Amino acid sequence: MGRWQPDSRGRLQEAALTLFAERGFDQTTAAEIAASAGVTERTFFRHFADKREVLFGGAPILQERVVAGVASAPPDAGPLDAVAGGLDAAADMLGEFRRDLSRRRHLVIAANPELRERERAKLADLAAAVATALGERGVAEPQATLAAEAGMTVLRLAVERWATGDEDRDLGAVMQDSLADLRAVAAGGQRRAITRRRRGTAGR
Amino acid sequence: MGRWQPDSRGRLQEAALTLFAERGFDQTTAAEIAASAGVTERTFFRHFADKREVLFGGAPILQERVVAGVASAPPDAGPLDAVAGGLDAAADMLGEFRRDLSRRRHLVIAANPELRERERAKLADLAAAVATALGERGVAEPQATLAAEAGMTVLRLAVERWATGDEDRDLGAVMQDSLADLRAVAAGGQRRAITRRRRGTAGR
Repeated sequence: MGRWQPDSRGRLQEAALTLFAERGFDQTTAAEIAASAGVTERTFFRHFADKREVLFGGAPILQERVVAGVASAPPDAGPLDAVAGGLDAAADMLGEFRRDLSRRRHLVIAANPELRERERAKLADLAAAVATALGERGVAEPQATLAAEAGMTVLRLAVERWATGDEDRDLGAVMQDSLADLRAVAAGGQRRAITRRRRGTAGR
Repeated sequence: MGRWQPDSRGRLQEAALTLFAERGFDQTTAAEIAASAGVTERTFFRHFADKREVLFGGAPILQERVVAGVASAPPDAGPLDAVAGGLDAAADMLGEFRRDLSRRRHLVIAANPELRERERAKLADLAAAVATALGERGVAEPQATLAAEAGMTVLRLAVERWATGDEDRDLGAVMQDSLADLRAVAAGGQRRAITRRRRGTAGR
């Protein structure tokens, strides 16, 4: 897969995210998105079942990549190390998407309760799939679900930091950093040691 | 607060959970719950705004207790140790509720997509409140949210194990055990070391 290309699908995504950000998700129609991208409405519906799918259409392939990343971790990797393999795969895929578009996507979802709900449901599905993949590696419960859920929190926060913060680093680096934060937190580092790690994320 | 008492509110909860389990949530009315509990419909609505509140009415007080538990942890406690204080408070409160009723509540919610959604939203709200409480203790982001979300996963899984598994121990013990599992997972224990911890939770 190459870099994100401004083909019809990409132009539709960009137009949709711009319109959603300007007018609000509910106030934007598929016809308006198509017109703004310079394609027919029929072309829109060839790429997306509805306007919501512009935001969430990537979920199945993301899940596939993340699960493959977990499954392909070395056999002796611990549960969270295997999850880290899934996070690397997620960073590779999501990092291809333009950061300004990721930011718009994040803000559109954050502004709409129904979309927030759907985003949360997609992440819960992803965590369940990762827990299943860990189970297939021989990880017992509740360890598999604990590692999977913690990993998906890392994913969510890292994407949010990368897309909306003042981060210059690429998504993979932010993801690894968040995972290290999780390990430090779980290791029970004292408050002083933790707050010392503060970066440019104040007020978030 | 004493043990759970079969007062009107308690009788209504028990009647509701029994009817929800027998007939399904959607097929049960407030009037039927009241009749089954031997009280008037007016009494039902004095205790609950609607039948859904029988399942979720405890969320605000749970949040209050958990946040107080986090806030009252020793000043030098790390983020996850402070969260553990909140989990203890949750175990104290939820452990008062009869285990067979908790089990019915869990099964009713698991069987209904809308209720699952609502339970997930309540847990997300709880995690956000815990992250805020950690922030007030001086914990920076993303550490506060990572610790809070991981802690709420521990809470969810521990209650599930306690209510539906073949656990004999009280909720506080299961909660502490799940928290230890989380720490072990995050510490990156090897697969062998993790699966060795497997208990009577196979097939979950």
